[in-house]
Amino acid sequence: MTSWLPTLVTDTPEEGHALAVKLSRFAIKLTQPDADVRDRLRPDYAEDADALIAVSQVVATHFATISAANDYWRDAS
Amino acid sequence: MTSWLPTLVTDTPEEGHALAVKLSRFAIKLTQPDADVRDRLRPDYAEDADALIAVSQVVATHFATISAANDYWRDAS
Amino acid sequence: MTSWLPTLVTDTPEEGHALAVKLSRFAIKLTQPDADVRDRLRPDYAEDADALIAVSQVVATHFATISAANDYWRDAS
Amino acid sequence: MTSWLPTLVTDTPEEGHALAVKLSRFAIKLTQPDADVRDRLRPDYAEDADALIAVSQVVATHFATISAANDYWRDAS
Amino acid sequence: MTSWLPTLVTDTPEEGHALAVKLSRFAIKLTQPDADVRDRLRPDYAEDADALIAVSQVVATHFATISAANDYWRDAS
Amino acid sequence: MTSWLPTLVTDTPEEGHALAVKLSRFAIKLTQPDADVRDRLRPDYAEDADALIAVSQVVATHFATISAANDYWRDAS
Repeated sequence: MTSWLPTLVTDTPEEGHALAVKLSRFAIKLTQPDADVRDRLRPDYAEDADALIAVSQVVATHFATISAANDYWRDAS
Repeated sequence: MTSWLPTLVTDTPEEGHALAVKLSRFAIKLTQPDADVRDRLRPDYAEDADALIAVSQVVATHFATISAANDYWRDAS
Repeated sequence: MTSWLPTLVTDTPEEGHALAVKLSRFAIKLTQPDADVRDRLRPDYAEDADALIAVSQVVATHFATISAANDYWRDAS
Repeated sequence: MTSWLPTLVTDTPEEGHALAVKLSRFAIKLTQPDADVRDRLRPDYAEDADALIAVSQVVATHFATISAANDYWRDAS
Repeated sequence: MTSWLPTLVTDTPEEGHALAVKLSRFAIKLTQPDADVRDRLRPDYAEDADALIAVSQVVATHFATISAANDYWRDAS
Repeated sequence: MTSWLPTLVTDTPEEGHALAVKLSRFAIKLTQPDADVRDRLRPDYAEDADALIAVSQVVATHFATISAANDYWRDAS
């Protein structure tokens, strides 16, 4: 069985950011498992400035965690 | 007696994320112990984009804590 | 004289979480010392989904601090 | 001249929490230096559940900083 | 192929802050990829005090991450 | 050319707090570069309790970063 989150380690900061976005979306799926409802809600936040900012706050929090997990990709830079 | 939170250590990032979700729900139970009221409120946030994002922010904060507790599961990756 | 917060060290994660809840409530008492007013406000947040989520965010922030203080109870696990 | 913030080091967690409250209030004074306006606004948040929770979030953030500054008062416990 | 985020390491705090701003904007682009919609929303937050503050909170979170990644530019100071 | 942010290192906690305030204001300038608009918005948040609290949250986040950068000014205390 494949895990949706096998590791927090990524090769690059860009991949780490993509993982942060994935994590922020996954929590929403857990709270609202119905894809139809999520699709119906999407315009509520994708076209609402406050909601877009709130989503980017969640991403920022996950990106902090993933960056620490990767020791900030210092070796790669 | 069994603790609802015996440890922050998990085997995998996926289990750590599940624990973050559990922690975010538990605080809500403490503030609103009545299951009937919680059930009545559920549509308020499960079908509201802002609330779904806010829940995912709480999960992100707990996931940061649990990730640090597990040293980011670096040994497993 | 007894301190309301003698230490951040707890024996278990569960006790640490209880302390996080206590801390989140104490700050509200400081800003609104009148117990009657607090009692009157209680339904405002105990039956409001957004407020319940906001309270759980505060608890999550304190739990992060207390978890770090206890080195994530790694020795106990 | 005396500093309003000479140090982040306190003897106890309780004093550290009091300093976190002081810090959260000080930032509001800086943004709104007029004491009359602040007094007028006070009922807006002291009797509003959402605002009380938001204040306690700021306190929680400062308490995290001060707790780290004091190495979580581990030596005292 | 060039990465939009090749590294978190910058020469100065000022460049680190600029990167934090870039990161906060990028997450909004991911959630709302349509530039026309984003342009239409811009006045919603650029002329709204609450939204401006919320954006600055996201920037602050990313700046914390980038500052840690650069060991706070201590060697440069 | 002078940088607006040459270093995160300050001599005292008080100066560190002032820098946190400067950082929280700077992000708002970046998102809304027009000083006239900012002046027009100022009453929206300087006389609004929720906005004042939100600003103090941003300051708290930056103060956490700056405090870590200065190793919490432990040597000075």
